[in-house]
Amino acid sequence: MKPIRLGMVGGGSGAFIGAIHRIAARMDGHFALVAGALSSDPARAAASAADLGIRSYGDFEEMARTEPARADGIQAVAIVTPNHLHAAPAVAFLRAGIHVICDKPLAATPQQARQIAEAAQASGARFFLTHNYCALPMLREARALVAEGALGDIRLVQAEYLQGWLAGESDSKQAEWRTDPARAGAGAIGDIGTHAWQLAEFVTGQVPQSLSADLSSMVPGRAVDDDARIALRYGSGAKGGIWVSQVAVGQENGLSLRVFGTKAALEWRLPEPERLILSPKDGPARILTRAQDRSASFRTPPGHPEGYLEGFANLYSDIAAIIRGDATPLERVPGLEAGLSGMAFIAAAQASSARDGAWVEVSP
Amino acid sequence: MKPIRLGMVGGGSGAFIGAIHRIAARMDGHFALVAGALSSDPARAAASAADLGIRSYGDFEEMARTEPARADGIQAVAIVTPNHLHAAPAVAFLRAGIHVICDKPLAATPQQARQIAEAAQASGARFFLTHNYCALPMLREARALVAEGALGDIRLVQAEYLQGWLAGESDSKQAEWRTDPARAGAGAIGDIGTHAWQLAEFVTGQVPQSLSADLSSMVPGRAVDDDARIALRYGSGAKGGIWVSQVAVGQENGLSLRVFGTKAALEWRLPEPERLILSPKDGPARILTRAQDRSASFRTPPGHPEGYLEGFANLYSDIAAIIRGDATPLERVPGLEAGLSGMAFIAAAQASSARDGAWVEVSP
Amino acid sequence: MKPIRLGMVGGGSGAFIGAIHRIAARMDGHFALVAGALSSDPARAAASAADLGIRSYGDFEEMARTEPARADGIQAVAIVTPNHLHAAPAVAFLRAGIHVICDKPLAATPQQARQIAEAAQASGARFFLTHNYCALPMLREARALVAEGALGDIRLVQAEYLQGWLAGESDSKQAEWRTDPARAGAGAIGDIGTHAWQLAEFVTGQVPQSLSADLSSMVPGRAVDDDARIALRYGSGAKGGIWVSQVAVGQENGLSLRVFGTKAALEWRLPEPERLILSPKDGPARILTRAQDRSASFRTPPGHPEGYLEGFANLYSDIAAIIRGDATPLERVPGLEAGLSGMAFIAAAQASSARDGAWVEVSP
Amino acid sequence: MKPIRLGMVGGGSGAFIGAIHRIAARMDGHFALVAGALSSDPARAAASAADLGIRSYGDFEEMARTEPARADGIQAVAIVTPNHLHAAPAVAFLRAGIHVICDKPLAATPQQARQIAEAAQASGARFFLTHNYCALPMLREARALVAEGALGDIRLVQAEYLQGWLAGESDSKQAEWRTDPARAGAGAIGDIGTHAWQLAEFVTGQVPQSLSADLSSMVPGRAVDDDARIALRYGSGAKGGIWVSQVAVGQENGLSLRVFGTKAALEWRLPEPERLILSPKDGPARILTRAQDRSASFRTPPGHPEGYLEGFANLYSDIAAIIRGDATPLERVPGLEAGLSGMAFIAAAQASSARDGAWVEVSP
Repeated sequence: MKPIRLGMVGGGSGAFIGAIHRIAARMDGHFALVAGALSSDPARAAASAADLGIRSYGDFEEMARTEPARADGIQAVAIVTPNHLHAAPAVAFLRAGIHVICDKPLAATPQQARQIAEAAQASGARFFLTHNYCALPMLREARALVAEGALGDIRLVQAEYLQGWLAGESDSKQAEWRTDPARAGAGAIGDIGTHAWQLAEFVTGQVPQSLSADLSSMVPGRAVDDDARIALRYGSGAKGGIWVSQVAVGQENGLSLRVFGTKAALEWRLPEPERLILSPKDGPARILTRAQDRSASFRTPPGHPEGYLEGFANLYSDIAAIIRGDATPLERVPGLEAGLSGMAFIAAAQASSARDGAWVEVSP
Repeated sequence: MKPIRLGMVGGGSGAFIGAIHRIAARMDGHFALVAGALSSDPARAAASAADLGIRSYGDFEEMARTEPARADGIQAVAIVTPNHLHAAPAVAFLRAGIHVICDKPLAATPQQARQIAEAAQASGARFFLTHNYCALPMLREARALVAEGALGDIRLVQAEYLQGWLAGESDSKQAEWRTDPARAGAGAIGDIGTHAWQLAEFVTGQVPQSLSADLSSMVPGRAVDDDARIALRYGSGAKGGIWVSQVAVGQENGLSLRVFGTKAALEWRLPEPERLILSPKDGPARILTRAQDRSASFRTPPGHPEGYLEGFANLYSDIAAIIRGDATPLERVPGLEAGLSGMAFIAAAQASSARDGAWVEVSP
Repeated sequence: MKPIRLGMVGGGSGAFIGAIHRIAARMDGHFALVAGALSSDPARAAASAADLGIRSYGDFEEMARTEPARADGIQAVAIVTPNHLHAAPAVAFLRAGIHVICDKPLAATPQQARQIAEAAQASGARFFLTHNYCALPMLREARALVAEGALGDIRLVQAEYLQGWLAGESDSKQAEWRTDPARAGAGAIGDIGTHAWQLAEFVTGQVPQSLSADLSSMVPGRAVDDDARIALRYGSGAKGGIWVSQVAVGQENGLSLRVFGTKAALEWRLPEPERLILSPKDGPARILTRAQDRSASFRTPPGHPEGYLEGFANLYSDIAAIIRGDATPLERVPGLEAGLSGMAFIAAAQASSARDGAWVEVSP
Repeated sequence: MKPIRLGMVGGGSGAFIGAIHRIAARMDGHFALVAGALSSDPARAAASAADLGIRSYGDFEEMARTEPARADGIQAVAIVTPNHLHAAPAVAFLRAGIHVICDKPLAATPQQARQIAEAAQASGARFFLTHNYCALPMLREARALVAEGALGDIRLVQAEYLQGWLAGESDSKQAEWRTDPARAGAGAIGDIGTHAWQLAEFVTGQVPQSLSADLSSMVPGRAVDDDARIALRYGSGAKGGIWVSQVAVGQENGLSLRVFGTKAALEWRLPEPERLILSPKDGPARILTRAQDRSASFRTPPGHPEGYLEGFANLYSDIAAIIRGDATPLERVPGLEAGLSGMAFIAAAQASSARDGAWVEVSP
């Protein structure tokens, strides 16, 4: 099978997530990056493209106009720009019939999200959202366990995503746009909160009905939230919580998920991504590893640690399969719905916090 | 030094916490149990006392009347009855000038708490409350680290206490009174929530100003809360959370505390009680053990695991020292104030939950 | 039941293991310490006894002569002196018909060990050796699992006991006699190696047939071994290893045991004494806790950490039961045989190392 | 920079390590696989090459003859065949001036190893050996810490590599050749023992002077060792041990390394590859992560788990840099010397074990 020809918007030299997408796309050989509008700065765009040996465009509009006409034009595009720059290229490429692989969260504003949604619904091309963590094998196994009833009825869900890198004043390029309301749309709840939200939904198969949020800006002068404590209520009667922070000093990337049901509980933590603890109501807890994972989303035998990049690459491989016509992975690859759900989460959290934690319906 | 003569109210055969108190009192040789009103069932009281080789009383009133007159009468009494039976004996012994060592929470109702408070304030005898966890060495070290500013300004506090033993219908003696509103006063928030609350206060030195609570009764027919998610706001601007549950299947006794400051963070978990992780803002995390603990609250060299009973015994040893006239441990042994703070926590949590999570002031 | 009257030889103020024995004897209320020859220094002996409120003897001979004649004389004696001073008091008390509870290793020399053995065999009193670790609940469960065949045929056994406290020159009282060949008899292999040896035997039910040892004295000028690497061969065809060190910097008290069979494996580590990992050949590993331990050797519910002192107290409680006539615990409480096995281990290890690691039969 | 054109010998469909090499070569974009002699079965070779979209050769000799003559011929070749088939292609490509990237161990016999050595020394091309674990960031940091004296003088080294996948009869393709003396040359000591040996040498910078080995074949009928316990003596006076097993049930891939010096100790375990515990003689242990690693051998921020494949890719990236003329990584990329050292280890271990564990010099 020939690699799928991939373009990229954003991800010029110095960018973080663009480089990650390129490794993930390359890892299993299903994609070949051939073109890019890698930076809004034309010189940097050109230099970055030259480094990568790909066609360079000064802006995404030109790329969206030009590529469809080429015999060797891109079949899919990865959008790895700051949040406020997702919508315009996503709409342009969807209209051009090119599949879109977009970084999360979906957009910086509800309006941008709606634009993407309308374009996606009107397009014959597909829209994917790279909530990469849910593609880790043990979380796919977690989802399967919940789905088959291994936990009984779910009662409690707790997702945490704790980082410390924004605990002080920061002048890094990453910190700059992520703490700018205009470009990010939200702070920690958008950047990492949507990951926690999506993961909880992915594993439990349930969307909370309402939430109560307390957003904080702990660092003086910060214009977006950098810590959020959110209580969740599910229609089923289950309760839950999301705690995200970017001022949790000492935490490098502390994502975790715990789910408690009437029959058993699951616990997973990113620092040990290949362990899933299944604790039955009675009897000893079990340490599940990839040897027990039925998704077979890996490249190496159990005990040969895979992690962040491989999870990201699992998404890209599934996306390649879908683009090539295999519908099987569709149920596990996040797309427009996951994006809209994340936007509803952000909106509800901001609304609740603005009303001093009043319970607010989550309306996707 | 002669052992202090100790009496006990409650703790007859089959009771849980009474046996614990007896081991804790005995471990370091500072107390000798000599008398007891061990059960409201006179036959069981007498049989239990005979097993222990101590003087038996049919009820605590008689013990409170009789013992002070004996030359070898008790100097202190441990009250290990269900919550609603703390106040009457506490008041009786305090009035009799006998030191009271009372299990937590302080009482089942605010009125009972007030009665204890008045009696304690009027008495020349002391009142102690056995929040045992705060006497574990690494938590004493945690408190010292916070007090000396090692964490900088505190921003985030998270205390959890998760158990699974009440996840189903239960007919154990322990479960019975602990889920009865009349005898327990509250469910999980009283039984284990007050431990989490006290620990957070003990380590940080701060009492939250207000809270927002969502209490649940997950098991059908249960009349008290068995899960609670509580958001905290401190006067300093810090935020916090308490999550307690007794339906968290697979969790045996999952108490933990995390505190994040501007300069460093602390993490402690009961399953590994002798490790305290100190994570500076920059640089590697440090695994503190008793080798680093300056409280020296232990009997064995580092690496020889001490735990629950030794923590409890640390309290009893400090109480003995105080009774013998050493004021030094007073600042770290929980007493009336801790009890009233716990009652204020329960009341605020219930009030907030009744008002759908509205923020409620905590007024001790 | 009345407490058993206990005497003690050694354990004066400043001693380490004597204080441990006293706590262990006291914890469950089965013993009352009433007499002691606590130090070879008469003044220190008397002062220590006064502190404890017990009868004091200037030497153990006098105590062994006097106590049997008293109506309230001791029924058992704990010997907690340095190794070379085990034999004389053990023989004296065994001849006097008083049960002996002796610290490990059995003796400093084979000759002393034989003297104890002869006295024990001739006495109506019992001899116990406090290999305390094997009384921890999860190791009792480990033994039960092996005995019932849960591991299949055992293939591999690995015991480690790593400490760092003798990594440098040390002038502590503890270090002094433990590194003196005359008083200790052996270095790390005696002090901690016999624990590892006994634990492996206790759990597997097998004694190695031969061993090959490499003993080292890493600290310049040290007259005993402070590191030893020992390979084991069992008659069954199983292989094993013991690694002990007292120069392993950073290790506080790193005792661990791993056993691999044809059907499953067990792993246990002292720093988390209440977890036993059972890994079947196929299927997920299981985290066993006291909730799964059938020995019920504990005082608190699972999740309330017990440790070193409670394990020691388990031994004392079993010893009390045996003294009172219950033969049930006999199979799990170490006695003369364990002591002789440990002496055979020391002798074989020293002989093998002296012959550059030649394989040497272990002959108890 | 253009990708380096890579060929491959072995690694046809169904092979394990060939696929790993391809991912590692691809991950950072420094190599493009263009040709292969992927199987000794011509049909399978052709089909596998077609799947990969590369030039196919029926045998490696033809590839070694043909490629050098092409303008777009391969610049380097990865040899991923069973051990006995390393030497012939390695010699052929080295003679053809093509860089060789060879899987470990170097060869199945000392004679084959010599052939490779001679060809490597005579060739202008380079020879690399993929001991992948030493390219993990925290092990590079471990090496740096030892080199700068952070541990003081090294006293103790312990490397373990425990697997359970050969605990029973196995008829997998992988198991078949790895347990065949003719094709593998050795059992566990070759397959995983050389990894442990190389890692210990890589981190400590020292090669043991002599060793004493006890090799076992635990599974009835097995013709190679599946368990080995090896004691090490260093010229410096340090002692060490290697324990490898492929019958350690429940162990997926348990590689670990512990090094104890006079000033500090290091501990690293593959299941948590991104943590390195540094324990000073005094003071708390430190949890080093990639935030502290000065090698910067990674693609993602700390806390985004990288693992086995990324370590392998680190090697490939360094190899690419070396091929392109950067000598810097030469000191950390294993080559001929590491291969010969591993062969010396195998030979000494087999010789010692054949002489019942006699100490044998290691002569590379």
